[in-house]
Amino acid sequence: MAVTVVGSVAFDALETPFGKRDRILGGAATHFSLAASFFTDVRVVGVVGEDFGAEELAVFEVRGINTDDLDRVDGARSFFWAGRYEEDMAVAHTLDTQLNVFAEFDPALSEGARESAVVFLANIQPDVQRRVREQCEAAVLTGLDSMNYWITSARDSLLQTMRAVDVVVLNDAEIRMLTHDPNLARGARQIRALGPRVVVAKQGSYGAAMFTEEGFFSVPGYPLETVVDPTGAGDSFAGGFFGYLDSHSASPITDEKLRCAAVYGSVLASFSIEEFGSERLQRLTHAEIEQRFDEFRRMTHFEAIRPAASGRTVTTSNRR
Amino acid sequence: MAVTVVGSVAFDALETPFGKRDRILGGAATHFSLAASFFTDVRVVGVVGEDFGAEELAVFEVRGINTDDLDRVDGARSFFWAGRYEEDMAVAHTLDTQLNVFAEFDPALSEGARESAVVFLANIQPDVQRRVREQCEAAVLTGLDSMNYWITSARDSLLQTMRAVDVVVLNDAEIRMLTHDPNLARGARQIRALGPRVVVAKQGSYGAAMFTEEGFFSVPGYPLETVVDPTGAGDSFAGGFFGYLDSHSASPITDEKLRCAAVYGSVLASFSIEEFGSERLQRLTHAEIEQRFDEFRRMTHFEAIRPAASGRTVTTSNRR
Repeated sequence: MAVTVVGSVAFDALETPFGKRDRILGGAATHFSLAASFFTDVRVVGVVGEDFGAEELAVFEVRGINTDDLDRVDGARSFFWAGRYEEDMAVAHTLDTQLNVFAEFDPALSEGARESAVVFLANIQPDVQRRVREQCEAAVLTGLDSMNYWITSARDSLLQTMRAVDVVVLNDAEIRMLTHDPNLARGARQIRALGPRVVVAKQGSYGAAMFTEEGFFSVPGYPLETVVDPTGAGDSFAGGFFGYLDSHSASPITDEKLRCAAVYGSVLASFSIEEFGSERLQRLTHAEIEQRFDEFRRMTHFEAIRPAASGRTVTTSNRR
Repeated sequence: MAVTVVGSVAFDALETPFGKRDRILGGAATHFSLAASFFTDVRVVGVVGEDFGAEELAVFEVRGINTDDLDRVDGARSFFWAGRYEEDMAVAHTLDTQLNVFAEFDPALSEGARESAVVFLANIQPDVQRRVREQCEAAVLTGLDSMNYWITSARDSLLQTMRAVDVVVLNDAEIRMLTHDPNLARGARQIRALGPRVVVAKQGSYGAAMFTEEGFFSVPGYPLETVVDPTGAGDSFAGGFFGYLDSHSASPITDEKLRCAAVYGSVLASFSIEEFGSERLQRLTHAEIEQRFDEFRRMTHFEAIRPAASGRTVTTSNRR
């Protein structure tokens, strides 16, 4: 089994209240791949320029990530994004975006990538997402992410792509924007009516909510006292989510597995934001993942200790 | 055992996308009392005008709520608040506030109220909260709510009152405003350093987070597709929380009980917002409460299905 992710592999320049990085490995597919690599084999589909060197390649290789579908274009530069976060860490302010090699990205997948059981279409142009989706005929589970830019500029194409996937992963604001509905539960229902069986709403520091046929599931954000860099949190979540599910994709993807996947996704996202870029995931261990998974269990666990009998004179039966 | 609440008993005029009410029973102590009455005996401490009649009194009496400490002032009018909610239901826009009898509110409690095991100081002037707190020498558990107005205009008094209670219940934005810290976990730590052993952060549609010595607990919001009127949600939460704890106050208030209390609080809040004002709580049943409590268990439950062995070549031991 393997999970294939298609998306950006990039360089980021980042400023947060905790410091800055002028040039750091980033991109949705990078964060996803690293997170997923703790659960299963990963193939990354993307394009980079000649500025992507041995040092960057090693970040993937040391985690065993297959880069056969990572094209390197001579005489061109990689996708570049510069952003800044203020004190509250909630909003990324884009300072610069240079598409570079990514402007013409429209991959033809290798046979290995086409045969993946699980496929994640990270945030790229929805026509391109759909053409990748169509190449993956063996997939048993597919998902996509998107962003406000595509929701407004390529809405019809995005809706068409959504009809072809099993899982839609968006943040709260994007779901509201897409569905023109301020109520998240109604918005998720609308998206599920298009075809996807699962809608995951990423909620920043509040965690994530999942809507499926069987009902609603919620996992909180991990209460970190220091968030160094939120960049890539959503992609790390998706990497943990789909990587975990790929490891269980030989048997049916049940609601119980989806719930665990959402928790593992939250675990990976919570580590991701502890340091800049992918620095934390690069030195993460399986033991740390399992330990934090257990912390999420404690954070959400409660026993049903029913209200004590109190000798109350008012009971249900004598209410009007 | 009994829980005593001190706070506003009022008339509200409300406009939401689902309709309007020109004059409806409201006030923090009203919502709190009704919610708490499903768990224990309740005493309400407040003041109303001569516009508060038999119909309003009956709302309390039918739920067995003790109104001995609800003063009725002849020749004066009750506290009045008018507010409007937009589509997203997240922010209440105040259209009118008339303090009326509430301007001089500074109650001397009856002996019965002074002997309560659990006391909740709803959102009123912090000096008044503190004078009430001082009268309740028998209390084994005390809590308070406040608001942005007091945080800015009576900050020192509010901090002093916080030092005298066990539980602080505020919303996220109020915690950030009070502590001048955008990080909720750090803010909650600051408040606990003042003295309270429990900080509850109300998070609107995201539910509630609780910080105690033993750790962090989170309960999601109930995913209602239709929120008719969010007024009183926070006070209904507090009523469920402290009412439940009062029913268990004969033995120590453990972390397990606090967690259940937060869930019962969320249950009561979720019912409260289904209809205008206190309409839904007035016809709520114990069976509905227990049913929704069980739904909260399902919404947050997950088994630890560990990642499947995947024949991966990368293991923890060969990572750099």
